[in-house]
Amino acid sequence: MTGPRPVQAPVSPLAIDRLALHPLGLDQVGITGGWFGEWQQRNRDVTAPHALAWLERDGSVANLRRIGGEEPAGPHQGMWFSDSDVHKVLEALSWEVGRLPSPELERRIADLTAVLRAAQQPDGYLNSFVQGGFDTRWDNLVMSHELYCMGHLIQAGVANHRATGRTDLLDVARRAADCVVNDFGEGRRKDTDGHPVIETALVELYRETGQDEYLEMAEQLINARGYGVLKPKGHFDSPYYQDATPVREQTTVVGHAVRALYLLSGVVDVYLETGEQALLDAALAQWTAMAATKLYLTGAVGSRFEGESFGDEYELPPDLVYGETCATVASIMVAWRLLLATGESRFADAIERALFNLISASTAVTGDAFFYNNPAQRRAAHPAAIPDSRQQRAEAPGTRPAWFECACCPPNIMRTVAQLAAYVATHDETGIQVHQFIPATVHAWVAKHQVKLKLATDYPADGTVRIQVTDTGDAPWTLSLRVPAWCRGASVTVNQEVVPADPDDHGYLRIHRVWAAGDTLSYDMPMPFRFTVAHPAVDAVHGMAAIERGPVVYCFEAPDQAAGIDLNRVELRSDEAPTAVTRTIAGHDVVAATVAAIARDDSDWDRHGWATLGEEPRRAGRPVNLVAIPYRMWANRGSAVMRIFTPIWRGDSDD
Amino acid sequence: MTGPRPVQAPVSPLAIDRLALHPLGLDQVGITGGWFGEWQQRNRDVTAPHALAWLERDGSVANLRRIGGEEPAGPHQGMWFSDSDVHKVLEALSWEVGRLPSPELERRIADLTAVLRAAQQPDGYLNSFVQGGFDTRWDNLVMSHELYCMGHLIQAGVANHRATGRTDLLDVARRAADCVVNDFGEGRRKDTDGHPVIETALVELYRETGQDEYLEMAEQLINARGYGVLKPKGHFDSPYYQDATPVREQTTVVGHAVRALYLLSGVVDVYLETGEQALLDAALAQWTAMAATKLYLTGAVGSRFEGESFGDEYELPPDLVYGETCATVASIMVAWRLLLATGESRFADAIERALFNLISASTAVTGDAFFYNNPAQRRAAHPAAIPDSRQQRAEAPGTRPAWFECACCPPNIMRTVAQLAAYVATHDETGIQVHQFIPATVHAWVAKHQVKLKLATDYPADGTVRIQVTDTGDAPWTLSLRVPAWCRGASVTVNQEVVPADPDDHGYLRIHRVWAAGDTLSYDMPMPFRFTVAHPAVDAVHGMAAIERGPVVYCFEAPDQAAGIDLNRVELRSDEAPTAVTRTIAGHDVVAATVAAIARDDSDWDRHGWATLGEEPRRAGRPVNLVAIPYRMWANRGSAVMRIFTPIWRGDSDD
Repeated sequence: MTGPRPVQAPVSPLAIDRLALHPLGLDQVGITGGWFGEWQQRNRDVTAPHALAWLERDGSVANLRRIGGEEPAGPHQGMWFSDSDVHKVLEALSWEVGRLPSPELERRIADLTAVLRAAQQPDGYLNSFVQGGFDTRWDNLVMSHELYCMGHLIQAGVANHRATGRTDLLDVARRAADCVVNDFGEGRRKDTDGHPVIETALVELYRETGQDEYLEMAEQLINARGYGVLKPKGHFDSPYYQDATPVREQTTVVGHAVRALYLLSGVVDVYLETGEQALLDAALAQWTAMAATKLYLTGAVGSRFEGESFGDEYELPPDLVYGETCATVASIMVAWRLLLATGESRFADAIERALFNLISASTAVTGDAFFYNNPAQRRAAHPAAIPDSRQQRAEAPGTRPAWFECACCPPNIMRTVAQLAAYVATHDETGIQVHQFIPATVHAWVAKHQVKLKLATDYPADGTVRIQVTDTGDAPWTLSLRVPAWCRGASVTVNQEVVPADPDDHGYLRIHRVWAAGDTLSYDMPMPFRFTVAHPAVDAVHGMAAIERGPVVYCFEAPDQAAGIDLNRVELRSDEAPTAVTRTIAGHDVVAATVAAIARDDSDWDRHGWATLGEEPRRAGRPVNLVAIPYRMWANRGSAVMRIFTPIWRGDSDD
Repeated sequence: MTGPRPVQAPVSPLAIDRLALHPLGLDQVGITGGWFGEWQQRNRDVTAPHALAWLERDGSVANLRRIGGEEPAGPHQGMWFSDSDVHKVLEALSWEVGRLPSPELERRIADLTAVLRAAQQPDGYLNSFVQGGFDTRWDNLVMSHELYCMGHLIQAGVANHRATGRTDLLDVARRAADCVVNDFGEGRRKDTDGHPVIETALVELYRETGQDEYLEMAEQLINARGYGVLKPKGHFDSPYYQDATPVREQTTVVGHAVRALYLLSGVVDVYLETGEQALLDAALAQWTAMAATKLYLTGAVGSRFEGESFGDEYELPPDLVYGETCATVASIMVAWRLLLATGESRFADAIERALFNLISASTAVTGDAFFYNNPAQRRAAHPAAIPDSRQQRAEAPGTRPAWFECACCPPNIMRTVAQLAAYVATHDETGIQVHQFIPATVHAWVAKHQVKLKLATDYPADGTVRIQVTDTGDAPWTLSLRVPAWCRGASVTVNQEVVPADPDDHGYLRIHRVWAAGDTLSYDMPMPFRFTVAHPAVDAVHGMAAIERGPVVYCFEAPDQAAGIDLNRVELRSDEAPTAVTRTIAGHDVVAATVAAIARDDSDWDRHGWATLGEEPRRAGRPVNLVAIPYRMWANRGSAVMRIFTPIWRGDSDD
């Protein structure tokens, strides 16, 4: 192997000269508390055993055991790509044990690795559905997910090696990658998989092994797409598969949201290693278009149930949003890579939006139930998910199911939470950059000296972040702090002395000085409640506002409202600022908001759907106070009416 | 056979004493021109041969020929319920030849009838998928559509007999119904089909034959539903199948929209024959809730792609509406039955809304291409349907496909157009009621005399309807004219003398007098353009208005606008009334509207999706004139941006 050893974190480029920012490993950053610290603990204590039990119950592991001869032959259980759930859980557990050892989890990883090794063919091919005789190898790439499953296997092998130094799962992954290279490499096949992920996985394996053929394979697979190489079957067309336009010519995100963003992750990965500017330009164009025209306030992307896909520009209706959890996970993957490539805060802002809103809301506070798609409005209480059963992915039950027929989302959440520390900070030759405000310790080499920081904060409950330098060299270096796009009037003191706090054009405020151990920095981001309005072309929330505070999107949920309030018939009084109030939701204290509103009386309207302008019934209402809670806490008290955007009251004279 | 001979029209109740209004047959009402007269001609000249050719191309007829031994055995082609397409085309052609003889179409009907007879089992069972060996008879009712297919067969047999007096197709239908009665009747089976339609079909067969067991069977199948008798498979739950709540307890429409409304048709049919008030009450409650909370302005129902289903109350986003054509056809079926039951104009209003908007828009003006789902907004031009190929139902191409994998909609449109004359007028002991303003001749027996009327009108291009009495007896009788809910200031003259024109509480104006042949009535409904706003709980079009004129919903489509206008960035000037202008679209002259608007300049917003209230970019714009066209004409000039609801401009001070 050549080049520097990758850091123990996802995305560890070898071609480091091109990086605007350098990642830190899970051995360098650790989350020490707060919302995400508690969640990491729950991820290990609750979600990990829950997921492992479901992989056994739903037959995903048994499918592989049968191929390895450990169980008698039989029908394939679950989705034809169920292998990927096993691989993704293995990746998640690997990051978990890298973060903090666990003999129990390590034993489970070793057991599952043995199952994979037994099932793997001599040439490295591994797919329990095809090997079980239910499809023909490489014969149905548009649908088969063979490269997709092997991509997740490779990601698991890389994660396991980075996190633990073990080579058994990495060896399985390498053999799988070798199989892909042997069968597809150097143009031996011109086609690719209907579902991307292999691209980013192969680049990561290149980083872990230094073997150029994996990078070349990733490039080939990216270059193959966009020429109608996949022959659509069933409902979906070439844009669905990102196969209508070559990636370098594509200026926005189209088709299946997860596929589009997994592919984009691979595109940025290839750019990071090869430096091909056209790839970065395409990725930046697609990302920028997505953020401006196809992104929900919660971090949801992909508005359509049909094809789990991106809609047209500004097609962002809250009531029929799909908003797959995996798509937001994938958006974080892309954003992180673009942050490393550019150093621009907008990508860390996007990660923050996703983490504190959709990703947090995707999982019950108990850690054992998940949304596959994430409503942004609910007009009526829906039937609850059936306890302890798995759900079809396309259903939208009132509460979070325990597991899914297509169980892609829960392991995706698990691996994101397990690797979360990696997104907190980076380093470069100037010093350290803090991107996410999460209680953590950060160790990095700066100017040839070890620097250690301790971040303490109640963020996002309040906007003060205290950073203590606990170790540093003598040379001056720069501590960079992200100034979120939502933030106005940030201030900083170092050892109680005020220092300038204006962000530069990358969105960071930079403090350059000779630091000493014991130095204490206090970063204060004022966090008033604010009303947020959408681009005027987002028709679905025209004349409406959402409430945000710091990075937190708020919602109104029925259990918090006074008797007699129908959240389908309220309007905001935007002339009165919401006030903070503490509420306890499912055992968690959160900053809620008391919001002045009008409870509308629509009774004159209720007999009919429309009225002629000028003849419409009087719009009357009574002043009320509503309570808004962080969106991430919703749906933890049964199924209930919920909304994020609410009409702005314009008074009775409104027409 | 007992009782009076049913009239030659769909829905000919035997228990006529209960009817508020009595239907007229296709031998009594004939459409003589106008939009629908031309369409009927096209239905016969273009759509009928197009559909017959597709039934051959897509294998629907071949599936049946194989069962009858006319072709060698082989796999089933197309959907497992493809028989229903054959049956529905047979029904449509039967109404067509009843309307006006056609030796060619009669020959095709006879040929297809022979195919069905050859395929039918001795006990009457007929299903090419099951008989082909691809499923087990009655074993999978939740999915199999066996009763659904046989229901459409029965409807075809009834239509053929009513329209032509022939008995060959009716005999096939009777044997099929006898099979259902033998296998399911008197509680021999407790379950029913996942997809209703058999219920209304059996009642119609009862009407045609007088055999009570068909009515009893329909009742039994309606009563079976609502107790979880269907074990859901795949994505869908009991509400999807209308199997969560017994119909008499159901207060709104839920689940798959077509299924819900086909079932409701059967419910009203059973009420009409048995007089069970609880059935009528349930149907009225469901209809009223649907019309107030789940109906689009265009007549679309069923907002969700997922499950082709009704959404929650006021869940009516224009950009992600499903709006299946068949669902609106089914809504006409229900409305017509409720009109006969109650005599209330709101049901005729609903039929008018559906006919002049969604139904008309569902079909290309060329008559050979169809929308399965009907967009109510399009933000970008989409790829066109592939010419001369069939499309998956769930795709939403930019132009209308020629045919579909699931070809339920085109035959449903065909049969609706073919039987349209039946919806024009009714009679009762007081006289004649005119419901739809379509050029037509109407013959009816009133006070024991033949009365003949001639309706002439350019409606909906203008609101004047001229009715000439061409034959009448000496006794006084009442001519009733619907006053549409949108109409203000209607006036009537008889022989140039003004008569009072106030509607009664059923929504009709009544003119009681001794009529004489040659009497001429002129009914004038003023038709200014009007701005229509939705119930305040329809968040998706909050602060927006649509343009209507008479029964016609207008839309803005890109081809009609001046260069540089982006319909995604316009707002209406509701202070200025639109003015009429004639435009020719795909060869049709229509009344278009010139509409004062503001072309918004959103360039300051375009870099980001949201802004904080109080910091948002200035909303500037320039005055422009837009052109609105009837929605029914859209998508006849390629794929283009289209919208119905548009924000109301509130000026630059707007926040």
